[in-house]
Amino acid sequence: MSKLVIVGTVAFDAIETPFGKTDKILGGAATYIGLAASHFNIDAAAVSVVGGDFPQKYLDLLSNRNIDISGIEIVKDGKTFFWSGRYHNDMNSRDTLVTELNTLENFNPVVPENYRDAEIVMLGNLHPIVQSSVLDQMVTKPKLVILDTMNFWMDIALNDLHNVMKRVDVITINDEEARQLTGEYSLVVAARKIQTMGPKYVVIKKGEHGALLFHNDAMFYAPALPLEEVFDPTGAGDTFAGGFAGYIAKTGDTSFENMKKAVIYGSTLASFSVEKFGTERMESLKSEDVHNRLLQFKQLTQFDINLS
Amino acid sequence: MSKLVIVGTVAFDAIETPFGKTDKILGGAATYIGLAASHFNIDAAAVSVVGGDFPQKYLDLLSNRNIDISGIEIVKDGKTFFWSGRYHNDMNSRDTLVTELNTLENFNPVVPENYRDAEIVMLGNLHPIVQSSVLDQMVTKPKLVILDTMNFWMDIALNDLHNVMKRVDVITINDEEARQLTGEYSLVVAARKIQTMGPKYVVIKKGEHGALLFHNDAMFYAPALPLEEVFDPTGAGDTFAGGFAGYIAKTGDTSFENMKKAVIYGSTLASFSVEKFGTERMESLKSEDVHNRLLQFKQLTQFDINLS
Repeated sequence: MSKLVIVGTVAFDAIETPFGKTDKILGGAATYIGLAASHFNIDAAAVSVVGGDFPQKYLDLLSNRNIDISGIEIVKDGKTFFWSGRYHNDMNSRDTLVTELNTLENFNPVVPENYRDAEIVMLGNLHPIVQSSVLDQMVTKPKLVILDTMNFWMDIALNDLHNVMKRVDVITINDEEARQLTGEYSLVVAARKIQTMGPKYVVIKKGEHGALLFHNDAMFYAPALPLEEVFDPTGAGDTFAGGFAGYIAKTGDTSFENMKKAVIYGSTLASFSVEKFGTERMESLKSEDVHNRLLQFKQLTQFDINLS
Repeated sequence: MSKLVIVGTVAFDAIETPFGKTDKILGGAATYIGLAASHFNIDAAAVSVVGGDFPQKYLDLLSNRNIDISGIEIVKDGKTFFWSGRYHNDMNSRDTLVTELNTLENFNPVVPENYRDAEIVMLGNLHPIVQSSVLDQMVTKPKLVILDTMNFWMDIALNDLHNVMKRVDVITINDEEARQLTGEYSLVVAARKIQTMGPKYVVIKKGEHGALLFHNDAMFYAPALPLEEVFDPTGAGDTFAGGFAGYIAKTGDTSFENMKKAVIYGSTLASFSVEKFGTERMESLKSEDVHNRLLQFKQLTQFDINLS
């Protein structure tokens, strides 16, 4: 088992979908990543920042799942990062209604002393300079660094993004972002180009169409489980990343074969996350639920053509 | 091994893609279905109509692959069905430039005497009344009838489509068509509704995102092979259907487990079809090419999570 450091937002979200709307609820990349990774009972720490308005019960929710929260700075007289968005009917697109950076604006992540030798680092979606500063603090070179990012940083901080990309092993981005980053429509060609930018493993998330893992000439595809209803897609990508990172940390195995399984775990956990608003479904998730859904993934994808 | 009857268009296509354009070349649903099915060295017959302008060499191309062409009517003083289309840059959408029905307008399919007891019938995309008339000619109830259709018939002949759907076992349609037919956005819910309309097996084609097979509560997913370049998508759906039908005919096994393999064969063959203009790649396809690509599909999708 490896130690896992997670850096990302811990936030308030307010979400509107065709099924309803929420008040300010628990959100943030590090939250979703942490909840997903905690499924593997690993030694993980979250590095983030919140304001004095952030409820203790949300922090307890993480620490009760064995996530070290000493790296979550609480700015007493500050306010927690707040995001609000509205999903369209197809659930594949959304409008951002509110973004209040608040304490996130001056976020200076500090990795707790006893996690600076963590083998696995998961850099959740943040400004690439902030992501880099986490790597600067590691006292031993991590075995695997995973980077999540988004189009926003490609638009406003592309150089910084390229700099942090040079320092990571795995990148997770969605299909449109892979195309934007490379100017290539074909995801195969885009993934090859991205590998020349730093990360030797590229995970392209295609939402309801699943996720692709690329490494050299090898490819692996994990479908998203076809669902009767997607209730709230918020956090699905972070949950995927958390499942991926958590499984790698649990096994300590960074081979391509093991990453295939990590991608399946990521897809499996993400398929739960979208079933209810916010983190609700992840909070109630049992390990037998995960086991049963992994069986569904097997039935969904495994076939028996004998190729001698 | 079972006999296979294929009904569909045999046509001229003129295609424009970002990579170039063709003159009138060989096209049509029955052509693509036949070429794909012929990979399995089965006993198949094509039922269609062409005009006196149709080159003998195209007919030879089919009969050289052991496809009985006695059911392809040649209307000496008529012209062959002609379709022309232009693909957009993303290859996922296209504009129809020309549709000349010609001899197809009065097409009265006649199944050759010695194929009226075929166990497998593949109804390629045509007016549902024409599809029904083929089933009327079968002297024994086929073991499996597969129907392909499209949104056009939902728009202008929905009642006739519902009538033929009641008589088939498998339907293949794309995701948007499944949504149009049922009014349901979720493909899981749509597939369940379609099963109440007749076909007990529903294949939903998602283009570059693969294909889903549904039966009762069971689901199977075959990805499309991620390609560096899609050169010409024309006929990919028909090639998929032909691979599916051909494999079922070859094995004579209509179980769900075997249909999974049929879906993988369909995806595999379709992945070749898009590599060149029109039927070109399918004409040069060798069985070792198929074998190697099936291995790629295995590597792409198979994982080894031990679920005790």
